[in-house]
Order: sequence, then C-alpha cells, then structure tokens
Amino acid sequence: MAHTNAPGSSTTTSSEFGPATGLSCRECGTVYDLGPIFACAECFGPLEVTYDFGDVRREDIESGPTNIWRYRSLLPVPPDVAAKPNLQPGWTKLVKADRLAAELGLRSLHIKDDSGNPTHSFKDRVVAIALEAARTFGFHTLSCSSTGNLAGAVGAAAARAGLDSCVFIPADLEAAKVTMASAYGGRLVGIQGTYDEVNRFCSELIGDELGEKWGFVNVNLRPYYAEGSKTLAYEIAEQLGWRLPDQIVIPVASGSQLTKVDKGFRELIRLGLVEDRPYRIFGAQAEGCSPVSRAYKAGHDVVQPVRPDTIAKSLAIGNPADGPYVLDIARRTGGAVEDVDDHEVVEAIRLLARTEGVFAETAGGVTVGVLRKLAREGRLDPDAETVVLNTGDGLKTLDAIAEQARPAAVIRPSLDAFRTAFAN
Amino acid sequence: MAHTNAPGSSTTTSSEFGPATGLSCRECGTVYDLGPIFACAECFGPLEVTYDFGDVRREDIESGPTNIWRYRSLLPVPPDVAAKPNLQPGWTKLVKADRLAAELGLRSLHIKDDSGNPTHSFKDRVVAIALEAARTFGFHTLSCSSTGNLAGAVGAAAARAGLDSCVFIPADLEAAKVTMASAYGGRLVGIQGTYDEVNRFCSELIGDELGEKWGFVNVNLRPYYAEGSKTLAYEIAEQLGWRLPDQIVIPVASGSQLTKVDKGFRELIRLGLVEDRPYRIFGAQAEGCSPVSRAYKAGHDVVQPVRPDTIAKSLAIGNPADGPYVLDIARRTGGAVEDVDDHEVVEAIRLLARTEGVFAETAGGVTVGVLRKLAREGRLDPDAETVVLNTGDGLKTLDAIAEQARPAAVIRPSLDAFRTAFAN
Repeated sequence: MAHTNAPGSSTTTSSEFGPATGLSCRECGTVYDLGPIFACAECFGPLEVTYDFGDVRREDIESGPTNIWRYRSLLPVPPDVAAKPNLQPGWTKLVKADRLAAELGLRSLHIKDDSGNPTHSFKDRVVAIALEAARTFGFHTLSCSSTGNLAGAVGAAAARAGLDSCVFIPADLEAAKVTMASAYGGRLVGIQGTYDEVNRFCSELIGDELGEKWGFVNVNLRPYYAEGSKTLAYEIAEQLGWRLPDQIVIPVASGSQLTKVDKGFRELIRLGLVEDRPYRIFGAQAEGCSPVSRAYKAGHDVVQPVRPDTIAKSLAIGNPADGPYVLDIARRTGGAVEDVDDHEVVEAIRLLARTEGVFAETAGGVTVGVLRKLAREGRLDPDAETVVLNTGDGLKTLDAIAEQARPAAVIRPSLDAFRTAFAN
Repeated sequence: MAHTNAPGSSTTTSSEFGPATGLSCRECGTVYDLGPIFACAECFGPLEVTYDFGDVRREDIESGPTNIWRYRSLLPVPPDVAAKPNLQPGWTKLVKADRLAAELGLRSLHIKDDSGNPTHSFKDRVVAIALEAARTFGFHTLSCSSTGNLAGAVGAAAARAGLDSCVFIPADLEAAKVTMASAYGGRLVGIQGTYDEVNRFCSELIGDELGEKWGFVNVNLRPYYAEGSKTLAYEIAEQLGWRLPDQIVIPVASGSQLTKVDKGFRELIRLGLVEDRPYRIFGAQAEGCSPVSRAYKAGHDVVQPVRPDTIAKSLAIGNPADGPYVLDIARRTGGAVEDVDDHEVVEAIRLLARTEGVFAETAGGVTVGVLRKLAREGRLDPDAETVVLNTGDGLKTLDAIAEQARPAAVIRPSLDAFRTAFAN
C-alpha cells in the first residue's frame, strides 16, 4: 500500500487528531496522511480514519465528561477537545421504553433519543468532530449541504466557535429548519433542487476557488465528520452497562450513521470493552426514498438512485453514498433494510409520543415505524435486547402531524362550556 | 402553630416524599400534613414544602444519576424515584459563554440552558416532581393551565407514566406549542381568554366534581411542582464547582422559579454544601407584561395585575402569584427587576444564537435582553461570576424571528448563480 501525501494537505502532529493515524481508502486500502481529503486518488473510493488506540479502559471513559468527549480516546480529536468552544453534544438519554415494548410485543426495548442534543438532532455529534478538524486545518468557514438538521448543527457549532458559516439547503425544506438554521447568523443559501443536487453543487464549489478555503463538514471533512456517529454505538453500549444490544434499528439517509454504529460496536469488541457476541443491524427508510431497502429486497449489491418523495425530508437522499456498505452490514449481521410509507411514519410518531412521551421528527417516525413493522412480521426476536434510534425532534417537522394533533375543543372559560364540550 | 390535617388529604408515609415533612403557609406559618392542598385554610396563603434534610453530602449527590434525581435527598420524592417512568429531566448544560460575555463587557458568564430538557423547557423539572405527588395521591389524570411549555411537559410526562392528561391553554398560543402538546395523545383544550383566565377556570374546575380527581400540577399539586425549580439552583452551584454565582438573571412569569432558585441557594448554604457568600438575583420581564418590574421600579410591595401584550407568551402572566416574593428577593439580595420590549427580545435571541449557538425561545430573549440592558447600564459587576437562564427553545417561538431569519438567497445549483448572488 502506498503512503501518499494528499495534495494541499498540511502535515499534522498526531496529538491534534488524538489516536488517529491516517486515512485509508475503504475500497482499495491506500493509506494517506491525515488531511482535508475525502476520496482516494487511486480509485476514488471513500476515505476512512484509521487509529492506533492503545489501551482504552472503561474507568477512563466513565470518569470523562457527560458528552461525546468522554470517548475522545476513540475519536480523531485532540486530548484537550473538551475544553474548546463547541456544543458538547452527546450522552443523550437511552430511554427504557416499557410501554412501547408492550404495544409491540417486545420484552426489552430502549430508545436512544438524540433529540436531546444541543440543536436537537444527532448531527451535533458529527459536526463537533468536523469542527475540530476544520480548526486544525485552518479553515475559517464551516459549510455543508444539508437536508435540514445538519444546517442547524453547522450554524450553531460555527457560531459558538467563532467561525463563519455558509450552509446550502434544498429551498423546499421545512420552515422550522430554515428559520432555526438562519438564526445563528451565518449565511444560509437555498438551492432550487433536491438534496442530491445541493450535494453535487457543493462538490463543484469545493473544486472552485470560491470554496477552496472552506471546511465542508460532509465533503472535504467527511472522514472526520462520519466518525462522530461512532459515539452513538459507544453510548448505547455503555448505557446498557457495557453490553451490545442484540438488535438495533437505525435510519438510513446516506447510510453513514449505520455503518459507523457497526464500526463502533466492532471497536468496542476489539478493545475488550464489551463481550464479543452477535448483534443484528436493521436499516430503516421511508418508502418514498428507499433505494437501499429496494436493493436489499431485490438481493442487489448496488443501489439504484431514486428521486425522493416523502415527508421524511431529513432522510431524503436519493443517491446514498454508503448504501452498499449498509447492504453488507445488514446481510452480515443477519439484519435487514425495510421501509414504511408516510402514513405509517405519522402513526409511528404518534405511537412513540403517546407511549413514551418522546416527540420525534419524521426520521424517528420512519425508524419506529420500521421497528413496528419488523415486530409485527416476526422478524425481530421478541425476547432480545432491542434498541431503536430517534435521531431528531418533532418540533422541526410539525407539519407532518399538525392536521392530526389539534386541541380537542376550544371553549369559553366556564364549567358549563366544558361540560357541553365533553358531555359524554 | 396548628398542625392541621387538610380535608380530603390521605396520610402518607414520610418515605413517599423523601425528606419532606409537611406543608407550611408562607404567610402565617400554619403547618399541614403532606397532601394535595395548596392554600392555607387559615389565611389563604400559599403552602410550601418543609423538610428535614439530615446530612447531605456532595459525594452522594455526585454519584447520582445525571438528571434532577441526583438531588432526590433535597426534594419531596421517594428514594426510588429515579427508577420510575418519568422523563428524567435536568442536568442541562451550564454553557461557558465567553463570546457573549465579551460583547457585553462581562468577565465570566454562563448560560444555564434548559432547552436541553426532554420537552425543551425548564417545565420538565417541575412536572417531574408533581407527577410523583400525583402518583402518591392516586390521581389518574394530570392536568394544568399553561402558557405553552407546561402543556408539552405535562402531556409528555403523563404519556410516559401511563396517566391520562387534560391540559388547558389560551387558544391563541404559538402553533408549535399547540401541536407538540397535542402530539402526546392527551386531551388539549383551548380556552378563549388570557392565561390568567385559563388559570381561574382551572381553580373553578378543581372545586367542581368534574376535576376533583385530577392532579393539576400548578394548582392542587403546586407546592410539590414548585420545588422542582430548586434543582436549577443546585445544578448551577454544582456545575460551577460547588459555588454560588455572584449574580444571576432569571425570567419572571408567576415568579415561582426565581423564588425557588433563591430557596435552593439558601438550602445549599445551610447544608454547608457551598460557601456562604452574597449573591444578587435579578428578575427579567417583557415590557408588555411587566407587573413585577413596574412594582419594583415604583418601590411598591404589591403587584398590580396587567393584561399581557408581548411576544414572550410563556412569560405572559398578568397576575403573578409570587410577584411580591420576587420583589422581596430582588431587594434583599441587591438585585433588581427589569424589563425589555419585544424588539429587544428578538435582538437578544439573535445575539445569543450568533455568539454561543444557543437558540432560545422568547423567554430566553427576555432574560438575555435584560442581562444586556443591566450590563450596558452598569448595574452588574462586570468582574463578578454571572449566570443567565435560558428556560426554553427557539423552535417553539419561530414566528418571533421568522421575518429576520431567512436564507440569504435562493439560487439554482450552479457556480455562476452563486457568484451572481454573492458578487460582492
């Protein structure tokens, strides 16, 4: 394997990226120095961070801060990262969901509720890692293409760190996400097109002098950014008492999150932090944007892009970069990739809120909807330890349920009016 | 002092309420057994929980869960409260706000950011305590009058606990709060009137057979409910390294939160958990609903009710029950009560988002706005340790900033279009 210096990348000391040792092509294995690069010069495959972890002990993690930096010895970040101005995401609740479990006929179910992050989605995790990389590489503008949640996470992280931001979104996003992302004072640009078109535009921009000094968290900082999702795996295992779940349902947009949860579980096993035992990973998509689910069901190894049409806009990536890896993992672990339609998404949002008091955005509705479908169809072991991810917040996708979630009545402030309204 | 059994209250064992020993009238000192009562039978004064804390040590608290139940030995809850189905609120971030501090000319500023709670407001704290009381008293319906945040907190808490809920709100609340509160599947009732009219209606309802079996968290469970705000004081002190801040700015709606933060600070001093040193408490109101601020400025001891007209709807209580106590505390501690207009509220929301990446609801805008006003006018010690509360989430009051928080441009996905839009 060649050890190639990426063009334009500055050499960095190892401490700036903690235990990370380099970047490696996921396709051909070519190794690169740590730098702001994301595609293999040999085969254009995606690059991934490699590590030399050394000895990592539970006690060291447990004595760390109650955010993702408790896992700094497993992430490409400097040892003093917890003291830097960032949003300190993570350590969100793992909610024991007995009432939902009872409705679904499952024995033990937990919800990993990432709506508790600073901007109320799991994106704060990945952006926090990309932010550190951006600082190290000397970028002064943080940028991204976004289906909405990332826009808010990048805007907020840049604001707190004192960086500029320039965020690109499809112009038809939910109003809540647009307003929130604008509130942080960075530059928000609406693009007439789908997320996939926004993403292609960002790749063009990065090759142009206009964007060459920018840190696009999910493009030229993507190898670092993606590692942030490993913290979901670490937290779930630690919160279960240093144990892997038997089965887990994860939403699939680009597919990156699912692949990194799997990577995180495998790292914990390799480091001896959890027992080595089998786990099954299930991917969840919305029917209106289900290229990975379709490929899974058809037995394909490649994913045919689609044009998204679903209320689950945060999952509306028609050409998911990590789709093939998701297929691999679902098949290797004995899981599956499944989808639900928009009606089922809304039902699942309401089911989760009614049973557990967790108000999820449409992506959470997709995941809980797929959980319900798998449980009903007998494809989950009802006695196994099950975890389902809620990656975002219902306040960002109110339109999805606004028609159904209304006051039971509007009355004058009198007992008579109350009696009349609720006579039966 | 008479030790009176409240009519209709069942006798409870002390362990069901942890260290709480009874209820005591804040006006005349009459003592009652713990029960679902809220007003003194002698003088109609408000009742407050009394305690026998015994020995409480920092280490015991520090080894507790990362939510308000770490302080269970200081709250009217059973020892096993952490294991019961509730939303486990609290232990929200104390954000070191260096960039905001620099803009305001302050040396050390922290934001206690309660938007990180499960339903994204401080109300989850108070509801969690009321929920335990409701369970102990055998209520099967959780109810409240609400300016919005409480509606969501009660709906979610009841859903998770498997109780029914019936929540009353002014019919003109922000759409986000209405939809969110409805999502949890309880009964939501819009009332044609102000919050104060909704509140009066609930008091009528509780005296009627319709509502006699209901636990109204902020009416017949109010003594328990209100204690939840003490946890803000405990967390701030612990997160500062077991130290009280020198000055703190707190929003004033009913005034209960401010009085309980003061109570919490005094308890910590009395228990020897923090050093006994002076602190100053400042109350913050919106000009359009500033009865306490007006009374403070006029040197009055009583608060003249007003009809609210402000975008800060969660603070729009025109007849604040704890107003006189707020005046006492502001004067006793050398603080003040101040107000800002709606324009300043919006400016403050944007200032906080731009400098720290914290997106506050209008109540947070009021508090940060008052902080800014006090700093500008030289009424805060710029060298003192300062804390400001953000009690809610910007996603719930998007309309307040939607006009100003928009994309910089909407363009086609091309470099030319980007160049044209941002030519200069």
